[in-house]
Amino acid sequence: MSCPYKQPAHQLTMIPGPIEFSDEVLYAMSTPSQSHTSTEFVATFLSTLKQLRKIFKSTDPKAQPYVVAGSGTLGWDMAASSLLEAGDKALVLSTGFFSDSFAEALRVYDINVDVISAPVGDVVPLAKVAEALQKTKYQAITITHVDTSTAVVSDIKAIAAKVRELSPETLIIIDGVCSVGAEDIEFDSWGLDYVLTGSQKALGCPAGLSISFASARAQAKVLSRAKPATFFASMKRWTPVMQAYEAGSGAYFATPAIQTITALNVALKQILDEGLDARLAKQAQVSDKFKQDLASLGLQIVPVSTKVAAHGLTGIYFPEGVAGGDLLAKIAGKGINVAGGIHKDIKTKYFRVGHMGVSAYRGDVGLVLQALKEALAELGYKK
Amino acid sequence: MSCPYKQPAHQLTMIPGPIEFSDEVLYAMSTPSQSHTSTEFVATFLSTLKQLRKIFKSTDPKAQPYVVAGSGTLGWDMAASSLLEAGDKALVLSTGFFSDSFAEALRVYDINVDVISAPVGDVVPLAKVAEALQKTKYQAITITHVDTSTAVVSDIKAIAAKVRELSPETLIIIDGVCSVGAEDIEFDSWGLDYVLTGSQKALGCPAGLSISFASARAQAKVLSRAKPATFFASMKRWTPVMQAYEAGSGAYFATPAIQTITALNVALKQILDEGLDARLAKQAQVSDKFKQDLASLGLQIVPVSTKVAAHGLTGIYFPEGVAGGDLLAKIAGKGINVAGGIHKDIKTKYFRVGHMGVSAYRGDVGLVLQALKEALAELGYKK
Repeated sequence: MSCPYKQPAHQLTMIPGPIEFSDEVLYAMSTPSQSHTSTEFVATFLSTLKQLRKIFKSTDPKAQPYVVAGSGTLGWDMAASSLLEAGDKALVLSTGFFSDSFAEALRVYDINVDVISAPVGDVVPLAKVAEALQKTKYQAITITHVDTSTAVVSDIKAIAAKVRELSPETLIIIDGVCSVGAEDIEFDSWGLDYVLTGSQKALGCPAGLSISFASARAQAKVLSRAKPATFFASMKRWTPVMQAYEAGSGAYFATPAIQTITALNVALKQILDEGLDARLAKQAQVSDKFKQDLASLGLQIVPVSTKVAAHGLTGIYFPEGVAGGDLLAKIAGKGINVAGGIHKDIKTKYFRVGHMGVSAYRGDVGLVLQALKEALAELGYKK
Repeated sequence: MSCPYKQPAHQLTMIPGPIEFSDEVLYAMSTPSQSHTSTEFVATFLSTLKQLRKIFKSTDPKAQPYVVAGSGTLGWDMAASSLLEAGDKALVLSTGFFSDSFAEALRVYDINVDVISAPVGDVVPLAKVAEALQKTKYQAITITHVDTSTAVVSDIKAIAAKVRELSPETLIIIDGVCSVGAEDIEFDSWGLDYVLTGSQKALGCPAGLSISFASARAQAKVLSRAKPATFFASMKRWTPVMQAYEAGSGAYFATPAIQTITALNVALKQILDEGLDARLAKQAQVSDKFKQDLASLGLQIVPVSTKVAAHGLTGIYFPEGVAGGDLLAKIAGKGINVAGGIHKDIKTKYFRVGHMGVSAYRGDVGLVLQALKEALAELGYKK
């Protein structure tokens, strides 16, 4: 059935999230009011939770999806306050701004945090992770799968395998904000314990939802906790609510964001109808092509090699002699918003382009490239 | 300009929130993607925050509005974790399920809570409040303006005056989830310190936002706090973000729920264009008429008198001999969802009808009354 809603022409949002949305997803946002316990909404939430299991490639019935009004930031809080306790030790692998922010969330709850920072544009070497795990007993390790500040992707499969080998009791917590739906994640077979994301990234739904997935053992830890450290971010309080909805009946801890969850359900269906692997391959292909085109223009990306470059966004250094602010303003003037830099060490030296979701299909990335070329030419840049 | 979107015919949601939404509000939910730092969205958020000051009838530039992805439940957490500290004493006036849940949120942070519970359908007498305040020094008092479980409204103006008289340093915290936009609230002149609500109640915007308002002295307390007890619910972290947006520039702690905030901005404009007092008067008139009609049918409301009956919803006892489940099913069969009971002492004995926002204008309440009459007749009820 064709969608009765066509979104109007607008400034293209080609930042690493919020991404552009499909007409069908936006139409679902305008769903008329429903009770949070209505047959219709219970069916929607049930479908959303079931679909999330497929997004995480998980078949373990004891693994638990969560969808809560909030954002990726709330996911950090849920992990920090529900999976760890004061005095616990956590190892944080930092590949940028967002990894460091996760560490900050952990410290709020008096968790002892050790941070291993990668050089800008690179990942933490596996040997360093192994060394730390052999020296100290950590209750958890946090890995930012793709740090949105550097556009670097960490090899969470290899890291998880190393953790399982050297310190099997350590919970493996993944910030998947810029990776879920854009990078492959095999939750069960890689032995992950908690992956969190936000709705507005590669899943292709407007902002407003914290989405996460917990393993059976993370779940056991959550439920055994006598006194969670927070109220709203308490996974223990949300677990029975999610279980009730997935079993086909409503339950209450807070009113769910009905319209946004309805839109998420549509967004997930669009991914799964195409096939998750096909979606990942398409985004990777568009990403690879974009990075090649940038190289042809003589531009340098932030990741030190394409091997550690993420597929959902690209971080690009401004070429010498081109003022960053001028370049972004010129691109904006051509109808496209891209994002400035946010990594403290290189903040003014680079910009970021998101190419997740529908933008990988609609030709949006070609428009960015064209606008970039024109803007560079207007600013006198020559390769 | 007429709205290009007309919501399709649907099961009417006549529960005490989520309420029915206007076409314009639902259309705003489908706004194409915008960056959280785009000129467009910054202007939207600025307007939303400025309009909230009018909704709370506040002119104090040092008072602070907050709009955060979440729900009313998050508002409890923001108050409990940011305005109070472990070991503090709080006095909770309970008029039902939601007052008790607020107390539960406070206890998470080791706040010593004294609860004064009103009999079902009644409010806590002012003399009892005075007595408690004279006996114990409380850092805060929490009052549920309208407890959605009983449809009872507390006289927060009188209570606040008594608190200011007897214990001027006690913070006055109001759960306004079912009152903001439906009952009069004069934030500055009544001397309130924190009022919280959710988007999906009388403000008339889909669920997904925690909305709150803090006084200058509550704000000072928040900002002086060395170490907030939580991460996501920390008002200290949100304050600079709200101030930046209201000053016309973006700031980041978490990605805001852009589409829902855009819808909230439209919803608030609809209220303020009509005039807040006119909106309150209209809802009160519809509420009074509905309660008279119920009395004519021989039905009894949960509040012990119309003096303590809220204006945004009505709690109604099932008449003798009528099975509650059958009645609600029959009403649902006529295209209208109303809500069951949730107060532990009378759970199966009553139901609740919401009549906030557009439903007070569109004739929806008349449809509820008609459906109720027909359903009662079909079940053999005679006055």
